[in-house]
Amino acid sequence: MKVLVNGLIALVLGVSSLTAAVGATSSDRARIVLQVSDDDPKKWNLALNNARNAQQDLGGPKNVDIEIVAYGPGINMLKMDAVTANRVSDAIKTGISIVACENTMGAQKIQKSDMNPSISYVPAGVIQLMRRQQQGWAYVRP
Amino acid sequence: MKVLVNGLIALVLGVSSLTAAVGATSSDRARIVLQVSDDDPKKWNLALNNARNAQQDLGGPKNVDIEIVAYGPGINMLKMDAVTANRVSDAIKTGISIVACENTMGAQKIQKSDMNPSISYVPAGVIQLMRRQQQGWAYVRP
Amino acid sequence: MKVLVNGLIALVLGVSSLTAAVGATSSDRARIVLQVSDDDPKKWNLALNNARNAQQDLGGPKNVDIEIVAYGPGINMLKMDAVTANRVSDAIKTGISIVACENTMGAQKIQKSDMNPSISYVPAGVIQLMRRQQQGWAYVRP
Repeated sequence: MKVLVNGLIALVLGVSSLTAAVGATSSDRARIVLQVSDDDPKKWNLALNNARNAQQDLGGPKNVDIEIVAYGPGINMLKMDAVTANRVSDAIKTGISIVACENTMGAQKIQKSDMNPSISYVPAGVIQLMRRQQQGWAYVRP
Repeated sequence: MKVLVNGLIALVLGVSSLTAAVGATSSDRARIVLQVSDDDPKKWNLALNNARNAQQDLGGPKNVDIEIVAYGPGINMLKMDAVTANRVSDAIKTGISIVACENTMGAQKIQKSDMNPSISYVPAGVIQLMRRQQQGWAYVRP
Repeated sequence: MKVLVNGLIALVLGVSSLTAAVGATSSDRARIVLQVSDDDPKKWNLALNNARNAQQDLGGPKNVDIEIVAYGPGINMLKMDAVTANRVSDAIKTGISIVACENTMGAQKIQKSDMNPSISYVPAGVIQLMRRQQQGWAYVRP
């Protein structure tokens, strides 16, 4: 009888942790990864507008995680002398993550010294976009 | 003993509802949200073709939920005088949801009286795209 | 008592299979579906670069499933005489799946004899993109 009761308790604990795991993948928390892969300042500004508006509409960075991943021809958005340089730095100050693809930088022989000093880096933009989706982030390509 | 049996019953009911929840997130039902964010009538027609073909191929609206979200420069697709106005109205009659982003409308000073009267509205297009993905809808950006 | 024990065993087995099902949808395995829907050789090469880099960075085809779905104006990428024909054939040899949308081919009166002989086909590109996401694949539109 005691064995049975212990078994039941273990089972209930198991089901509880399973519920927690399911909760994590169903992603109640707002999380958005935005892709920038065009060499087009209009798209860069649209992505920055999307990030800012989503953050404001959802009540600030405590309520939503936002990341912009720039790769391929979109890498120019994150250069030091890009027309969007100030907006990129300002967005990072509000808690938006903005990352550049090191694969792209290697292929285009771009150095970190060419880049906006406030950004972060990922080894491969496409893999970052995949991992974020696997972690339950929504994907939006402006 | 009776306690144990009641516990088991509760547990079985708990597991059943958990299974139902998992089933909901694994989204067996066909659900597609299409994004329109380009000011390009070719893209508007492509999105409308995608919606119509997916609905027909899957056996009609009883088998699939389809929504088109227009925001940013894509908002023009849903104006009253857009070249796609008739196609938009026809798509809505077949059960396709077509929604405009009120954030974009505010930024561009567009009134509802400028818009196709058959469409619906969401406060923020990007947040709608996120919520749909969290609900298990597939995302396609034509 | 024996009934109870059998019930518990059945329950444990049930929970185990449920855990397996949840594991499958949380998609630990790397799986990426890339969409090509632009009539733009730069986008075609970007998609092929993305596929190749993701495969190499993740340690080869044993570690990642990659599929490129071409539809709409993107169908031209997969024609026999496309500028990317050799790259498409080479990618397929490395284990990347590349599929053309038969709906698009019908609408544009394209025959299979016009197409790169190494590719595969799906009835509808958009439905393929939906199914892959439902199966846990990440979606990337270069």
